[in-house]
Amino acid sequence: MKPVKVGICGLGTVGGGTFNVLMRNAGEITRRAGRAIEVTAIASRHENPACDTSGFTLQSDVMALARDPEIDVIVELIGGYDVAKELVMTAIQHGKHVVTANKALIAVHGNEIFAAAREQNVVVAFEAAVAGGIPIIKAIREGLAANRINWLAGIINGTGNFIMTEMREKGRAFSDVLAEAQALGYAEADPTFDVEGIDAAHKLTILASIAYGIPLQFEKGYTEGISKITPDDVQYAEELGYRIKHLGISRHTDQGIELRVHPTLIPKSTLLANVNGVMNAVLVSGDAVGQTLYYGPGAGSEATASAVVADLIDVARLLDTDTHSRVPPLAFQSDELSAVPVLPVEQTVSGYYLRLQAVERPGVLAHVTRILGEKGINIEAIVQKETREAQVPVIMLTQRVEERMMNEAIREIEALPDILGDVIRIRIDHLED
Amino acid sequence: MKPVKVGICGLGTVGGGTFNVLMRNAGEITRRAGRAIEVTAIASRHENPACDTSGFTLQSDVMALARDPEIDVIVELIGGYDVAKELVMTAIQHGKHVVTANKALIAVHGNEIFAAAREQNVVVAFEAAVAGGIPIIKAIREGLAANRINWLAGIINGTGNFIMTEMREKGRAFSDVLAEAQALGYAEADPTFDVEGIDAAHKLTILASIAYGIPLQFEKGYTEGISKITPDDVQYAEELGYRIKHLGISRHTDQGIELRVHPTLIPKSTLLANVNGVMNAVLVSGDAVGQTLYYGPGAGSEATASAVVADLIDVARLLDTDTHSRVPPLAFQSDELSAVPVLPVEQTVSGYYLRLQAVERPGVLAHVTRILGEKGINIEAIVQKETREAQVPVIMLTQRVEERMMNEAIREIEALPDILGDVIRIRIDHLED
Repeated sequence: MKPVKVGICGLGTVGGGTFNVLMRNAGEITRRAGRAIEVTAIASRHENPACDTSGFTLQSDVMALARDPEIDVIVELIGGYDVAKELVMTAIQHGKHVVTANKALIAVHGNEIFAAAREQNVVVAFEAAVAGGIPIIKAIREGLAANRINWLAGIINGTGNFIMTEMREKGRAFSDVLAEAQALGYAEADPTFDVEGIDAAHKLTILASIAYGIPLQFEKGYTEGISKITPDDVQYAEELGYRIKHLGISRHTDQGIELRVHPTLIPKSTLLANVNGVMNAVLVSGDAVGQTLYYGPGAGSEATASAVVADLIDVARLLDTDTHSRVPPLAFQSDELSAVPVLPVEQTVSGYYLRLQAVERPGVLAHVTRILGEKGINIEAIVQKETREAQVPVIMLTQRVEERMMNEAIREIEALPDILGDVIRIRIDHLED
Repeated sequence: MKPVKVGICGLGTVGGGTFNVLMRNAGEITRRAGRAIEVTAIASRHENPACDTSGFTLQSDVMALARDPEIDVIVELIGGYDVAKELVMTAIQHGKHVVTANKALIAVHGNEIFAAAREQNVVVAFEAAVAGGIPIIKAIREGLAANRINWLAGIINGTGNFIMTEMREKGRAFSDVLAEAQALGYAEADPTFDVEGIDAAHKLTILASIAYGIPLQFEKGYTEGISKITPDDVQYAEELGYRIKHLGISRHTDQGIELRVHPTLIPKSTLLANVNGVMNAVLVSGDAVGQTLYYGPGAGSEATASAVVADLIDVARLLDTDTHSRVPPLAFQSDELSAVPVLPVEQTVSGYYLRLQAVERPGVLAHVTRILGEKGINIEAIVQKETREAQVPVIMLTQRVEERMMNEAIREIEALPDILGDVIRIRIDHLED
């Protein structure tokens, strides 16, 4: 069969890895796909010293590749929103299939992109957009297709997980570990996307859409970062049998769909709690299968390229097929997406870890527990840490409650004269159905 | 689009689960597949009290379903070799697609079955044959298709893992836990397939074929069960930082492919070592992606049905396609399979845990270490357990060595007059590249 002709746009970390994997494993890939996958053109502003592109002339105009009639598939690895979107839309209009690793683009503009692709009968594949080399899109969209998905929870940002792991293992402060992560190249110079959870929220938006068949709704998710987590909280959580992980969580409830990224206490005996360093993992609960977990490197040059090239092999097989022979981009047929709403965070339900600074005086705890009781919040554990100061840290774990009620309780607790400063709250998830 | 018409053959644990998932999630499945998946006929000798089959007449002759022109897909869930093989071959000859959960059938007769299916242009899908509800076939065959697979290691028999977990957590003896597993329904009345590793070897045979693109070669694998593991070995391993798991391991080496099922010491800090109870997990190392792990329930009615129905949804999409648009059964095009040989176990390479009973007399250990040294075997650790008896247990951990050399060393050690009884050996794997 004729080779599939690929145009690679962007020759950075992932683009370079994609080029190298396609070259090194060309024989293996052809033996699998039944046809060769041939790099026909590369558009990049810079050479990549890790790539031997001596047979190629690097082109500067990515849009020229999107219009090139010789090219079957555009691989979009330039990142960002504006140029990437124009590139993808131009490629689709010219009848080309697209493979992308761009989570921000899919999370924010995916609905529009998939509609255009459907009209042109082309595939837009994005396995590499979530959890790097872990084939989590394929697992949920195809492997678990028999199931109603109940919920999923994932460590989907390697930088954040590296920071949380270092804080726990070495008792280090957030800012200290962040500086090291930046020096190691795990974190960007501007780490906001990673540590404030925006990158994870992009990925969670995509996971929730393919799990429940809802349109992409990035703007409706709740996002909270890890920059306010202290070594004390990490330590107290550990003492209580929990570990703090920065999770993306999405649950399908009777009221609607929860879509939230935040630091979370999870039982330390769970596999997810033992996913360390820059590794990613996603735990998925389906009504037939129960819980399955997918673990691996969530970033890196060839790990991400592994997902890009897997998509290319899928596209190579699908070149001569119609839409009804292909897996729809959001797992469900495009005219069968669900209108179940994404819930505002105030309506989501979690357990809570609360840390208060209280003046050591009789009756303070009674006031706090009365307030919680009035809001219908059950306390599972209270720990008063010993101290030589006049004020003591008090840790409480609560059962699951609607966030709205917890917000009201915290406002009243913070108004108590013997409670100093803000109440620190971190959500708890037992990862149970 | 027209519904896909399915004939379910066998209404036992997995057949019943498949029927129930297809009924309960019919709406969801149609929204995903773009067409309904309709149970047209059921062949079973018995009713299943967990299934409401009131709209159906259970048929006794499975072969009649395989010849029924109304049926598009035969779901083979009767198990075993003879009747199952005849059923699958008859269905293929009548132009029907087949979905099966039968690992024994695929491992032993898969090459012949896939050749027949290729000739008739039908799909034979078998996701449910390995690791129940974990979509591991899809992950390796498609999700990791960009990679040369270096090795894989899996806990792929839930009964065996339940027994090993109970032995470790409660210090119980093998036979004691086995009796409980039988009472709980985790183990069959004849537990040979599970505890002697035959079931795991069937699954490993399939995994190795799709990982490396080699024909199915069940008869060339090495299989060793867990019935000789003692609570002492479990405890000693733990003290040395390891955990004993019953693993299927396959490595692609320069000499050939290792294919072996046996108890294995793995570092207890690894995720695989923390997969407990009846759960399954498979760790796969690819040259581009690195290590990824897949975890979930390896058996059970609806967990396995989840995989069967996922295959049905795939088949529903592929009905109108040709071979070149489909993933080949063994991941590589059928005329591109590899001739790399499966190695005899004597040529495989492992680290070893050795336990000897030695008479407590000066010079005994010197004899043993001299023998190991002469065979080029490096010792990593020696522990002499304290005892009040005249003979002491000695534990040694060795570096990786070809099994042939270890066999020679053990023969010589067992011939030493101060070594009593057999040398116990358990292989070690650090799960590293």
